[in-house]
Amino acid sequence: MTATPKILAFDIFGTVVDWHGSIAREVDAMQLGVGGSEFALAWRAGYKPAMQRVRSGELGWTGIDELHRMILDEVLAKFGVAHLDEAHKRHLNRVWHRLDPWPDSVEGVTRLKTRHVVCTLSNGNIGLLTDMAKRAGLPWDCILSAEVFRAYKPDPQTYLGVAATFDVAPHEVMLVAAHHDDLAGARACGLLTAYIERPLEFGAAQPKDVSSRPQNTLHCASLVALAARLGC
Amino acid sequence: MTATPKILAFDIFGTVVDWHGSIAREVDAMQLGVGGSEFALAWRAGYKPAMQRVRSGELGWTGIDELHRMILDEVLAKFGVAHLDEAHKRHLNRVWHRLDPWPDSVEGVTRLKTRHVVCTLSNGNIGLLTDMAKRAGLPWDCILSAEVFRAYKPDPQTYLGVAATFDVAPHEVMLVAAHHDDLAGARACGLLTAYIERPLEFGAAQPKDVSSRPQNTLHCASLVALAARLGC
Repeated sequence: MTATPKILAFDIFGTVVDWHGSIAREVDAMQLGVGGSEFALAWRAGYKPAMQRVRSGELGWTGIDELHRMILDEVLAKFGVAHLDEAHKRHLNRVWHRLDPWPDSVEGVTRLKTRHVVCTLSNGNIGLLTDMAKRAGLPWDCILSAEVFRAYKPDPQTYLGVAATFDVAPHEVMLVAAHHDDLAGARACGLLTAYIERPLEFGAAQPKDVSSRPQNTLHCASLVALAARLGC
Repeated sequence: MTATPKILAFDIFGTVVDWHGSIAREVDAMQLGVGGSEFALAWRAGYKPAMQRVRSGELGWTGIDELHRMILDEVLAKFGVAHLDEAHKRHLNRVWHRLDPWPDSVEGVTRLKTRHVVCTLSNGNIGLLTDMAKRAGLPWDCILSAEVFRAYKPDPQTYLGVAATFDVAPHEVMLVAAHHDDLAGARACGLLTAYIERPLEFGAAQPKDVSSRPQNTLHCASLVALAARLGC
Protein backbone atom coordinates (compact mmCIF):
# COMPACT_ATOMS: atom_id res chain seq x y z
CA MET A 1 0.00 0.00 0.00
CA THR A 2 1.31 3.40 -0.93
CA ALA A 3 1.53 6.05 1.74
CA THR A 4 -0.66 9.01 0.81
CA PRO A 5 0.75 12.24 2.13
CA LYS A 6 -1.46 15.32 2.46
CA ILE A 7 1.43 17.72 2.18
CA LEU A 8 4.35 17.52 -0.25
CA ALA A 9 7.29 19.68 0.83
CA PHE A 10 9.93 20.21 -1.84
CA ASP A 11 13.61 20.84 -1.50
CA ILE A 12 14.44 23.39 -4.21
CA PHE A 13 18.13 23.83 -5.13
CA GLY A 14 19.05 20.80 -7.23
CA THR A 15 15.69 19.08 -6.76
CA VAL A 16 13.32 21.48 -8.54
CA VAL A 17 15.79 23.88 -10.18
CA ASP A 18 19.15 23.39 -11.88
CA TRP A 19 21.52 25.66 -9.94
CA HIS A 20 24.65 24.36 -11.68
CA GLY A 21 23.50 24.81 -15.25
CA SER A 22 21.76 28.14 -14.60
CA ILE A 23 24.75 29.72 -12.86
CA ALA A 24 27.28 28.28 -15.30
CA ARG A 25 25.34 29.73 -18.25
CA GLU A 26 25.04 33.15 -16.67
CA VAL A 27 28.70 33.31 -15.61
CA ASP A 28 29.87 32.16 -19.04
CA ALA A 29 27.71 34.86 -20.65
CA MET A 30 29.42 37.51 -18.49
CA GLN A 31 32.72 36.71 -20.25
CA LEU A 32 34.81 37.20 -17.13
CA GLY A 33 37.41 34.73 -18.33
CA VAL A 34 36.41 32.14 -15.74
CA GLY A 35 34.77 28.77 -16.34
CA GLY A 36 31.09 28.99 -15.49
CA SER A 37 30.85 25.39 -14.32
CA GLU A 38 33.85 25.66 -11.98
CA PHE A 39 32.53 28.98 -10.67
CA ALA A 40 29.11 27.49 -9.94
CA LEU A 41 30.62 24.50 -8.14
CA ALA A 42 32.88 26.71 -6.01
CA TRP A 43 29.99 28.98 -5.05
CA ARG A 44 27.78 26.05 -4.09
CA ALA A 45 30.63 24.40 -2.15
CA GLY A 46 30.59 27.36 0.24
CA TYR A 47 26.88 26.89 1.00
CA LYS A 48 26.88 24.24 3.70
CA PRO A 49 29.88 25.69 5.59
CA ALA A 50 28.18 29.12 5.59
CA MET A 51 24.93 27.70 6.97
CA GLN A 52 26.92 25.76 9.55
CA ARG A 53 28.29 29.08 10.86
CA VAL A 54 24.69 30.11 11.49
CA ARG A 55 23.69 26.74 12.94
CA SER A 56 26.64 26.76 15.33
CA GLY A 57 25.78 30.25 16.56
CA GLU A 58 28.99 31.79 15.19
CA LEU A 59 26.75 34.00 13.05
CA GLY A 60 23.34 35.28 14.14
CA TRP A 61 20.37 34.54 11.89
CA THR A 62 21.52 35.35 8.35
CA GLY A 63 19.44 34.83 5.22
CA ILE A 64 20.66 32.96 2.17
CA ASP A 65 20.94 36.08 -0.02
CA GLU A 66 23.46 37.46 2.44
CA LEU A 67 25.29 34.13 2.85
CA HIS A 68 25.46 33.79 -0.94
CA ARG A 69 27.05 37.24 -1.12
CA MET A 70 29.67 36.41 1.51
CA ILE A 71 30.62 33.28 -0.44
CA LEU A 72 30.49 35.12 -3.77
CA ASP A 73 33.05 37.65 -2.59
CA GLU A 74 35.40 34.81 -1.63
CA VAL A 75 34.86 32.99 -4.92
CA LEU A 76 35.38 36.14 -7.00
CA ALA A 77 38.70 36.68 -5.20
CA LYS A 78 39.69 33.04 -5.70
CA PHE A 79 39.01 33.30 -9.43
CA GLY A 80 40.85 36.63 -9.71
CA VAL A 81 37.82 38.74 -10.60
CA ALA A 82 37.23 40.59 -7.33
CA HIS A 83 37.45 43.87 -9.31
CA LEU A 84 33.94 43.28 -10.71
CA ASP A 85 31.92 46.41 -9.92
CA GLU A 86 29.34 46.45 -7.14
CA ALA A 87 26.29 46.63 -9.43
CA HIS A 88 27.40 43.51 -11.29
CA LYS A 89 28.17 41.71 -8.02
CA ARG A 90 24.70 42.50 -6.73
CA HIS A 91 23.11 41.36 -9.96
CA LEU A 92 25.16 38.17 -10.05
CA ASN A 93 24.29 37.37 -6.43
CA ARG A 94 20.63 37.35 -7.39
CA VAL A 95 21.21 34.65 -10.02
CA TRP A 96 19.87 32.30 -7.32
CA HIS A 97 16.49 34.06 -7.80
CA ARG A 98 16.70 33.26 -11.53
CA LEU A 99 17.49 29.55 -11.52
CA ASP A 100 15.80 27.54 -14.26
CA PRO A 101 13.60 24.57 -13.32
CA TRP A 102 14.47 21.09 -14.53
CA PRO A 103 12.37 20.29 -17.65
CA ASP A 104 9.88 18.14 -15.70
CA SER A 105 9.45 20.43 -12.67
CA VAL A 106 6.58 22.72 -13.70
CA GLU A 107 4.47 19.86 -15.08
CA GLY A 108 5.26 17.66 -12.08
CA VAL A 109 4.38 20.26 -9.43
CA THR A 110 1.28 21.34 -11.34
CA ARG A 111 0.01 17.75 -11.45
CA LEU A 112 0.90 17.04 -7.82
CA LYS A 113 -0.96 20.20 -6.77
CA THR A 114 -4.25 18.70 -7.94
CA ARG A 115 -4.31 16.21 -5.07
CA HIS A 116 -1.84 17.52 -2.50
CA VAL A 117 -0.78 20.74 -0.86
CA VAL A 118 2.53 21.54 -2.55
CA CYS A 119 4.96 23.77 -0.68
CA THR A 120 8.63 24.58 -0.71
CA LEU A 121 10.88 23.62 2.18
CA SER A 122 14.14 25.23 1.26
CA ASN A 123 16.97 26.95 3.03
CA GLY A 124 16.51 29.73 0.48
CA ASN A 125 14.86 32.89 1.78
CA ILE A 126 11.19 33.65 1.09
CA GLY A 127 11.88 36.50 -1.34
CA LEU A 128 14.28 34.36 -3.37
CA LEU A 129 11.83 31.47 -3.57
CA THR A 130 8.97 33.80 -4.53
CA ASP A 131 10.97 35.46 -7.32
CA MET A 132 12.08 32.05 -8.60
CA ALA A 133 8.55 30.63 -8.60
CA LYS A 134 7.08 33.65 -10.37
CA ARG A 135 9.75 33.60 -13.08
CA ALA A 136 9.64 29.84 -13.60
CA GLY A 137 5.89 29.37 -13.27
CA LEU A 138 6.11 27.02 -10.29
CA PRO A 139 2.59 27.04 -8.78
CA TRP A 140 3.32 26.52 -5.06
CA ASP A 141 0.36 26.57 -2.69
CA CYS A 142 2.66 28.03 -0.07
CA ILE A 143 6.29 29.08 0.24
CA LEU A 144 7.89 27.72 3.39
CA SER A 145 11.52 28.38 4.12
CA ALA A 146 14.14 28.09 6.79
CA GLU A 147 13.41 31.81 7.19
CA VAL A 148 9.92 31.02 8.53
CA PHE A 149 11.29 28.63 11.16
CA ARG A 150 14.51 30.58 11.82
CA ALA A 151 16.44 27.31 11.45
CA TYR A 152 18.26 25.69 8.56
CA LYS A 153 17.69 22.15 7.36
CA PRO A 154 18.47 19.55 8.61
CA ASP A 155 17.29 21.10 11.89
CA PRO A 156 14.20 19.13 13.05
CA GLN A 157 12.36 22.44 13.55
CA THR A 158 12.12 22.76 9.77
CA TYR A 159 10.61 19.32 9.04
CA LEU A 160 8.34 19.36 12.09
CA GLY A 161 7.53 22.98 11.29
CA VAL A 162 5.83 21.92 8.06
CA ALA A 163 3.58 19.47 9.93
CA ALA A 164 2.77 22.10 12.57
CA THR A 165 2.02 24.75 9.94
CA PHE A 166 -0.67 22.54 8.43
CA ASP A 167 -1.78 20.93 11.72
CA VAL A 168 -1.07 17.39 10.49
CA ALA A 169 1.01 14.50 11.81
CA PRO A 170 4.61 14.19 10.55
CA HIS A 171 3.74 11.04 8.59
CA GLU A 172 1.19 13.03 6.58
CA VAL A 173 4.04 15.11 5.15
CA MET A 174 6.42 13.86 2.44
CA LEU A 175 9.75 15.56 1.79
CA VAL A 176 10.69 15.51 -1.89
CA ALA A 177 14.43 15.95 -2.42
CA ALA A 178 17.42 14.90 -4.49
CA HIS A 179 19.68 14.70 -1.42
CA HIS A 180 19.87 11.74 0.93
CA ASP A 181 21.06 13.81 3.93
CA ASP A 182 18.00 16.05 3.68
CA LEU A 183 15.71 13.03 3.39
CA ALA A 184 17.42 11.38 6.37
CA GLY A 185 16.72 14.46 8.47
CA ALA A 186 13.06 14.36 7.48
CA ARG A 187 12.79 10.61 8.09
CA ALA A 188 14.21 11.02 11.60
CA CYS A 189 11.29 13.37 12.30
CA GLY A 190 8.72 10.85 11.03
CA LEU A 191 8.10 12.31 7.58
CA LEU A 192 7.70 10.23 4.43
CA THR A 193 10.45 10.70 1.86
CA ALA A 194 10.68 10.74 -1.95
CA TYR A 195 14.10 10.70 -3.59
CA ILE A 196 14.28 12.35 -7.01
CA GLU A 197 17.14 11.42 -9.34
CA ARG A 198 19.05 14.45 -10.55
CA PRO A 199 22.16 12.87 -12.08
CA LEU A 200 23.27 16.18 -13.65
CA GLU A 201 22.97 18.29 -10.51
CA PHE A 202 26.73 19.00 -10.55
CA GLY A 203 27.00 19.15 -14.33
CA ALA A 204 27.63 16.56 -17.03
CA ALA A 205 31.31 16.31 -16.06
CA GLN A 206 30.44 15.12 -12.54
CA PRO A 207 27.51 12.70 -12.81
CA LYS A 208 25.96 11.98 -9.41
CA ASP A 209 25.26 8.51 -8.01
CA VAL A 210 21.47 8.34 -7.98
CA SER A 211 21.08 4.71 -7.00
CA SER A 212 18.12 3.78 -4.85
CA ARG A 213 18.30 3.53 -1.07
CA PRO A 214 15.71 1.37 0.67
CA GLN A 215 15.16 3.85 3.50
CA ASN A 216 13.18 6.21 1.29
CA THR A 217 9.44 5.77 0.86
CA LEU A 218 9.64 6.44 -2.89
CA HIS A 219 12.39 6.70 -5.51
CA CYS A 220 11.51 8.48 -8.77
CA ALA A 221 13.36 9.60 -11.87
CA SER A 222 11.58 12.96 -12.01
CA LEU A 223 8.74 15.01 -10.55
CA VAL A 224 6.49 13.85 -13.38
CA ALA A 225 7.29 10.28 -12.37
CA LEU A 226 6.39 11.16 -8.77
CA ALA A 227 3.07 12.59 -9.97
CA ALA A 228 2.32 9.37 -11.83
CA ARG A 229 3.37 7.31 -8.79
CA LEU A 230 0.94 9.26 -6.58
CA GLY A 231 -1.88 8.99 -9.10
CA CYS A 232 -1.89 12.64 -10.16
CA MET B 1 1.48 60.41 -11.26
CA THR B 2 0.42 57.04 -9.92
CA ALA B 3 2.67 55.32 -7.45
CA THR B 4 3.79 51.96 -8.84
CA PRO B 5 4.34 49.44 -6.09
CA LYS B 6 6.40 46.31 -6.75
CA ILE B 7 4.67 44.32 -4.03
CA LEU B 8 0.94 44.23 -3.29
CA ALA B 9 0.20 42.86 0.18
CA PHE B 10 -3.44 41.97 0.79
CA ASP B 11 -5.43 41.95 3.97
CA ILE B 12 -7.69 38.90 3.73
CA PHE B 13 -10.66 38.70 6.13
CA GLY B 14 -13.25 41.14 4.76
CA THR B 15 -11.00 42.47 2.00
CA VAL B 16 -10.53 39.36 -0.19
CA VAL B 17 -13.01 36.96 1.39
CA ASP B 18 -16.52 37.40 2.83
CA TRP B 19 -16.24 36.09 6.39
CA HIS B 20 -19.71 37.26 7.41
CA GLY B 21 -21.62 35.68 4.55
CA SER B 22 -19.58 32.47 4.54
CA ILE B 23 -19.93 31.83 8.27
CA ALA B 24 -23.59 32.87 8.38
CA ARG B 25 -24.41 30.42 5.57
CA GLU B 26 -22.55 27.55 7.21
CA VAL B 27 -24.04 28.17 10.67
CA ASP B 28 -27.55 28.48 9.24
CA ALA B 29 -27.06 25.18 7.39
CA MET B 30 -26.12 23.49 10.69
CA GLN B 31 -29.67 24.20 11.96
CA LEU B 32 -28.55 24.87 15.52
CA GLY B 33 -31.43 27.23 16.11
CA VAL B 34 -29.17 30.27 16.16
CA GLY B 35 -29.04 33.09 13.62
CA GLY B 36 -26.02 32.64 11.37
CA SER B 37 -25.49 36.36 10.87
CA GLU B 38 -25.56 37.14 14.59
CA PHE B 39 -23.30 34.19 15.28
CA ALA B 40 -20.75 35.35 12.70
CA LEU B 41 -20.76 38.89 14.08
CA ALA B 42 -20.26 37.67 17.64
CA TRP B 43 -17.39 35.42 16.62
CA ARG B 44 -15.64 38.16 14.69
CA ALA B 45 -16.20 40.64 17.55
CA GLY B 46 -13.94 38.49 19.72
CA TYR B 47 -11.09 38.67 17.21
CA LYS B 48 -9.37 41.94 18.05
CA PRO B 49 -9.65 41.48 21.85
CA ALA B 50 -8.11 37.99 21.50
CA MET B 51 -5.21 39.29 19.44
CA GLN B 52 -4.76 42.11 21.92
CA ARG B 53 -4.18 39.51 24.63
CA VAL B 54 -1.27 38.22 22.55
CA ARG B 55 0.01 41.70 21.69
CA SER B 56 -0.04 42.74 25.35
CA GLY B 57 1.93 39.65 26.38
CA GLU B 58 -0.94 38.24 28.46
CA LEU B 59 -0.86 35.22 26.11
CA GLY B 60 2.31 33.87 24.50
CA TRP B 61 2.36 33.55 20.71
CA THR B 62 -0.95 31.95 19.77
CA GLY B 63 -2.08 31.29 16.20
CA ILE B 64 -5.44 32.41 14.84
CA ASP B 65 -6.86 28.87 14.62
CA GLU B 66 -6.41 28.56 18.37
CA LEU B 67 -7.71 32.08 19.10
CA HIS B 68 -10.75 31.37 16.92
CA ARG B 69 -11.42 28.25 18.95
CA MET B 70 -11.18 30.11 22.27
CA ILE B 71 -13.68 32.68 20.99
CA LEU B 72 -15.91 29.99 19.46
CA ASP B 73 -16.28 28.24 22.82
CA GLU B 74 -17.43 31.51 24.37
CA VAL B 75 -19.82 32.25 21.52
CA LEU B 76 -21.32 28.75 21.58
CA ALA B 77 -21.97 29.19 25.31
CA LYS B 78 -23.47 32.63 24.77
CA PHE B 79 -25.85 31.27 22.13
CA GLY B 80 -26.76 28.27 24.31
CA VAL B 81 -25.25 25.60 22.05
CA ALA B 82 -22.15 24.65 24.02
CA HIS B 83 -23.36 21.05 23.92
CA LEU B 84 -22.28 20.74 20.27
CA ASP B 85 -19.97 17.72 20.06
CA GLU B 86 -16.22 18.11 19.72
CA ALA B 87 -16.01 16.90 16.11
CA HIS B 88 -18.56 19.49 15.01
CA LYS B 89 -16.79 22.21 17.01
CA ARG B 90 -13.49 21.37 15.33
CA HIS B 91 -15.11 21.36 11.92
CA LEU B 92 -16.91 24.63 12.55
CA ASN B 93 -13.72 26.29 13.79
CA ARG B 94 -12.13 25.55 10.44
CA VAL B 95 -14.87 27.47 8.59
CA TRP B 96 -12.28 30.27 8.51
CA HIS B 97 -10.28 28.03 6.14
CA ARG B 98 -13.35 27.78 3.88
CA LEU B 99 -14.35 31.42 3.46
CA ASP B 100 -15.64 32.35 0.03
CA PRO B 101 -13.94 35.14 -1.91
CA TRP B 102 -15.88 38.23 -2.95
CA PRO B 103 -17.04 37.85 -6.56
CA ASP B 104 -14.25 40.10 -7.94
CA SER B 105 -11.36 38.70 -5.87
CA VAL B 106 -10.02 35.86 -8.02
CA GLU B 107 -10.12 37.92 -11.23
CA GLY B 108 -8.63 40.94 -9.46
CA VAL B 109 -5.70 39.08 -7.86
CA THR B 110 -5.04 37.14 -11.06
CA ARG B 111 -4.81 40.34 -13.10
CA LEU B 112 -2.70 42.13 -10.48
CA LYS B 113 -0.30 39.17 -10.40
CA THR B 114 0.68 39.84 -14.02
CA ARG B 115 2.59 43.01 -13.09
CA HIS B 116 3.15 42.78 -9.33
CA VAL B 117 4.16 40.31 -6.66
CA VAL B 118 0.87 39.51 -4.91
CA CYS B 119 1.07 38.24 -1.34
CA THR B 120 -1.17 37.97 1.67
CA LEU B 121 -0.51 39.98 4.81
CA SER B 122 -3.07 38.61 7.19
CA ASN B 123 -3.29 37.86 10.87
CA GLY B 124 -4.57 34.44 9.78
CA ASN B 125 -2.09 31.59 10.17
CA ILE B 126 -0.21 30.17 7.18
CA GLY B 127 -2.12 26.88 7.06
CA LEU B 128 -5.47 28.67 7.13
CA LEU B 129 -4.45 31.05 4.34
CA THR B 130 -3.08 28.18 2.24
CA ASP B 131 -6.23 26.08 2.59
CA MET B 132 -8.38 29.10 1.75
CA ALA B 133 -6.34 30.02 -1.33
CA LYS B 134 -6.34 26.46 -2.66
CA ARG B 135 -10.11 26.09 -2.23
CA ALA B 136 -10.94 29.53 -3.66
CA GLY B 137 -8.36 29.56 -6.47
CA LEU B 138 -6.54 32.65 -5.18
CA PRO B 139 -3.17 32.56 -6.97
CA TRP B 140 -0.85 34.20 -4.40
CA ASP B 141 2.82 34.41 -5.25
CA CYS B 142 3.56 34.05 -1.56
CA ILE B 143 1.64 33.63 1.68
CA LEU B 144 2.83 36.01 4.36
CA SER B 145 1.18 36.06 7.73
CA ALA B 146 1.53 37.43 11.22
CA GLU B 147 2.79 33.91 11.94
CA VAL B 148 5.92 34.57 9.83
CA PHE B 149 6.72 37.75 11.76
CA ARG B 150 5.46 36.52 15.14
CA ALA B 151 3.52 39.78 15.48
CA TYR B 152 -0.04 40.76 14.72
CA LYS B 153 -1.09 43.73 12.61
CA PRO B 154 -0.98 46.65 13.22
CA ASP B 155 2.49 45.92 14.67
CA PRO B 156 5.06 47.71 12.44
CA GLN B 157 7.04 44.46 12.23
CA THR B 158 4.37 43.07 9.94
CA TYR B 159 4.31 45.93 7.41
CA LEU B 160 8.06 46.45 7.46
CA GLY B 161 8.47 42.68 7.38
CA VAL B 162 6.93 42.55 3.91
CA ALA B 163 9.44 45.10 2.60
CA ALA B 164 12.33 43.23 4.26
CA THR B 165 11.16 39.88 2.88
CA PHE B 166 11.41 41.19 -0.66
CA ASP B 167 14.40 43.50 -0.02
CA VAL B 168 12.54 46.61 -1.19
CA ALA B 169 11.85 50.00 0.38
CA PRO B 170 8.57 50.42 2.30
CA HIS B 171 7.20 52.78 -0.39
CA GLU B 172 7.55 49.97 -2.94
CA VAL B 173 4.93 47.97 -1.03
CA MET B 174 1.19 48.74 -1.15
CA LEU B 175 -1.18 47.37 1.48
CA VAL B 176 -4.59 46.53 0.03
CA ALA B 177 -7.31 46.48 2.69
CA ALA B 178 -10.91 47.29 3.49
CA HIS B 179 -10.02 48.64 6.94
CA HIS B 180 -8.76 52.14 7.66
CA ASP B 181 -6.93 51.15 10.87
CA ASP B 182 -4.89 48.54 9.02
CA LEU B 183 -4.09 51.04 6.27
CA ALA B 184 -3.11 53.67 8.85
CA GLY B 185 -0.63 51.22 10.40
CA ALA B 186 0.90 50.55 6.99
CA ARG B 187 1.04 54.25 6.10
CA ALA B 188 2.87 55.03 9.35
CA CYS B 189 5.57 52.59 8.18
CA GLY B 190 5.90 54.28 4.79
CA LEU B 191 3.83 51.85 2.71
CA LEU B 192 1.42 52.90 -0.03
CA THR B 193 -2.23 52.13 0.70
CA ALA B 194 -5.27 51.06 -1.33
CA TYR B 195 -8.69 51.09 0.31
CA ILE B 196 -11.20 48.61 -1.08
CA GLU B 197 -14.90 49.22 -0.54
CA ARG B 198 -16.63 46.25 1.06
CA PRO B 199 -19.98 47.75 2.10
CA LEU B 200 -21.43 44.32 2.93
CA GLU B 201 -18.56 43.14 5.15
CA PHE B 202 -20.88 42.95 8.17
CA GLY B 203 -23.91 41.79 6.21
CA ALA B 204 -26.71 43.59 4.38
CA ALA B 205 -28.33 44.57 7.68
CA GLN B 206 -25.28 46.57 8.75
CA PRO B 207 -23.94 48.41 5.70
CA LYS B 208 -20.46 49.84 6.30
CA ASP B 209 -19.42 53.43 5.63
CA VAL B 210 -17.02 53.11 2.70
CA SER B 211 -16.52 56.78 1.97
CA SER B 212 -13.13 57.87 0.70
CA ARG B 213 -10.38 59.17 2.98
CA PRO B 214 -7.71 61.37 1.43
CA GLN B 215 -4.86 59.74 3.36
CA ASN B 216 -4.99 56.60 1.20
CA THR B 217 -3.01 56.39 -2.02
CA LEU B 218 -5.91 54.75 -3.86
CA HIS B 219 -9.62 54.14 -3.24
CA CYS B 220 -11.30 51.42 -5.32
CA ALA B 221 -14.69 49.75 -5.39
CA SER B 222 -13.21 46.27 -5.91
CA LEU B 223 -10.01 44.34 -6.65
CA VAL B 224 -10.91 44.36 -10.35
CA ALA B 225 -11.14 48.15 -10.14
CA LEU B 226 -7.70 48.18 -8.46
CA ALA B 227 -6.32 46.06 -11.30
CA ALA B 228 -7.70 48.51 -13.85
CA ARG B 229 -6.31 51.46 -11.85
CA LEU B 230 -2.83 49.88 -11.87
CA GLY B 231 -3.00 49.08 -15.58
CA CYS B 232 -3.31 45.31 -15.18
